[in-house]
Amino acid sequence: MFQVMKKEGAARRGVFSCAHGVVQTPVFMNVGTQGAIKGALSAEDLQTIGCQVELSNTYHLHLRPGDQLVRKMGGLHKFMTWSGPILTDSGGFQVFSLAKLRKIKEEGVYFSSHIDGRKIFMGPEESMQIQSNLGSDVCMAFDECVENPAPYDYVKQSAARTYRWLLRCKAENERLNALEDTVNREQMLWGINQGGTYADLRIAHMQQIASLDLPGYAIGGLAVGESTQTMYDIIEAVEPHMPQNKSRYLMGVGTPSNIIEGVARGIDFFDCVMPARNARHAKLFTWSGTINLKNAKYESDERPIDAQCDCPVCKRYSRAYLRHLFKAEEMLAQRLSVMHNLYFYNMLARRIRDALDEGTFTQFRSKYAELLASRAED
Amino acid sequence: MFQVMKKEGAARRGVFSCAHGVVQTPVFMNVGTQGAIKGALSAEDLQTIGCQVELSNTYHLHLRPGDQLVRKMGGLHKFMTWSGPILTDSGGFQVFSLAKLRKIKEEGVYFSSHIDGRKIFMGPEESMQIQSNLGSDVCMAFDECVENPAPYDYVKQSAARTYRWLLRCKAENERLNALEDTVNREQMLWGINQGGTYADLRIAHMQQIASLDLPGYAIGGLAVGESTQTMYDIIEAVEPHMPQNKSRYLMGVGTPSNIIEGVARGIDFFDCVMPARNARHAKLFTWSGTINLKNAKYESDERPIDAQCDCPVCKRYSRAYLRHLFKAEEMLAQRLSVMHNLYFYNMLARRIRDALDEGTFTQFRSKYAELLASRAED
Repeated sequence: MFQVMKKEGAARRGVFSCAHGVVQTPVFMNVGTQGAIKGALSAEDLQTIGCQVELSNTYHLHLRPGDQLVRKMGGLHKFMTWSGPILTDSGGFQVFSLAKLRKIKEEGVYFSSHIDGRKIFMGPEESMQIQSNLGSDVCMAFDECVENPAPYDYVKQSAARTYRWLLRCKAENERLNALEDTVNREQMLWGINQGGTYADLRIAHMQQIASLDLPGYAIGGLAVGESTQTMYDIIEAVEPHMPQNKSRYLMGVGTPSNIIEGVARGIDFFDCVMPARNARHAKLFTWSGTINLKNAKYESDERPIDAQCDCPVCKRYSRAYLRHLFKAEEMLAQRLSVMHNLYFYNMLARRIRDALDEGTFTQFRSKYAELLASRAED
Repeated sequence: MFQVMKKEGAARRGVFSCAHGVVQTPVFMNVGTQGAIKGALSAEDLQTIGCQVELSNTYHLHLRPGDQLVRKMGGLHKFMTWSGPILTDSGGFQVFSLAKLRKIKEEGVYFSSHIDGRKIFMGPEESMQIQSNLGSDVCMAFDECVENPAPYDYVKQSAARTYRWLLRCKAENERLNALEDTVNREQMLWGINQGGTYADLRIAHMQQIASLDLPGYAIGGLAVGESTQTMYDIIEAVEPHMPQNKSRYLMGVGTPSNIIEGVARGIDFFDCVMPARNARHAKLFTWSGTINLKNAKYESDERPIDAQCDCPVCKRYSRAYLRHLFKAEEMLAQRLSVMHNLYFYNMLARRIRDALDEGTFTQFRSKYAELLASRAED
């Protein structure tokens, strides 16, 4: 399922395979929360921008259109017409960040839909059933994502419950995969490490979940309130306890620098809504730093967003035209900007892989980790 | 510039040529008011959907980003990266439908921008100068568009002023085309017939403007309050007075039936925002009538929007998925729906041309004129 091909320090160049294809890692997964990419990007566009893995969300698709409908339509791959690998998040994070009137019990979470207030219960079994109906290649364990900072005792008992939930997830995933009419019987369950900003809790929890010998492990509950340095410290503390021959996923992270630094600390999979969200606000990534297209200095700038980029947007459109589209509030502004930013992220992962292949990741990291976080000079 | 190749009754199969290409008529022109198509469609997409002529707007582009900027960027073709023919509307219609605090004088119109309230003057010369800066292939005369019904006397004196404005437009267009640094020195001016719902005023005005021997003539001021039958009656009254060997354009019209009926009455060029606007509200055209994708009966409908359509949307996506995108308020819903509806309109024009080529337009008209206006049975 996952093989490390080469290492440079803690950084890993790997290959992951699943029912819907082979994924070269490190990889950035492109977020299509509701089975569609923001900025009016379609499944066809995912191919254009170099996407390897699409990521959708259990919570959102359960609410709308409903996972039973998606199952009836042949699963999420067929429904959204994306034939490559799909990972589904468990809904845990969204239940804790979006849903209202939340009550956490041992059996799971009672909450109200953020759309219509409807009362819903979701526990480990429900999350597994929904993800099974969606037919994703990788389903994530149902966990509690605690916002940082949180009291030590609370985080400790929460991580313990998340472990008990993982045992139930594993049993339910195995049961569902054994059923003949399951959409994707090769669906893999990945565990999620929790423990807040407490290294000892993180390590103990990681050791516990590693003992289950799952095909992949994620670090969850980071980039939710703590400093970037704390995030890196936690990854460094946990990483030695993550199995070497399993996929590793840093959930919901992050900036281009965060991704480079995550790779340097042994992470293989990333996802983040930031490139699409920034794009919608005219904040674009370039290989010389970020630019804000709403800035007056781009008014008659005939250059592409990034002369070093060969995405379909940079090959055709000027900054001046894109800026006009933003000012005129044309939807096309968002489409072209999201397309560029996601292409940039997928290309970032590709350049990281190339550097690892060539044994030059250290140089790549020292050249780009800070540059990409800066504002472009031009 | 324009040649009628074949006729069937009053219907004409023609060929129009301009600096940016050859256009087969009858043709539907695709509206990109601000230099972009609604629904996040790009210039690339215009090719995909079979667009022959793009239509942009003087009023909007003058306000934002400013025609001076577009000129500086090499003209609208280069700015929006569309290399085919472009027609620009004169701003007349928008000044009368969008602008505020409007005062009409002999010299032109004083008004406030609908965006920021800025005071602006636009007369025939200004409209010509703006359209010259945009560099469109066809520029439209600056006219007053009177809402129907309007008092006879007002319409009469307004049409007389529109004629005096046309003389000034013609002189200014000729002056600008003679300048060496003009963006598109082959820009053609088309006149616009006015006269409200009064056949005698319409005919007298048409005879007046026809005497100027312009390369094209539009019928303006229809589909602005009068009944469909009145619109058809006016076209039938005016048509015999339109030059045979010049392009004819029915402005801002209309439904698929209106277009078929317009062709039957001797019209060559059409434009309308309706296919894009309807698409954004999930109202889609099919060759069996219209459907509203928000309807619950399409919830698990695996069929494309229209099995008879070979647009990129119908070739790939199900009604169920598109309906989900609308319900989930994903921008992709609008993109895919606009793409389908515009493809449908361009295909409608193409099928009209094919029918004219084959001498079967009469049969086409009796089969489709009512069917396309109905709700699909399925």
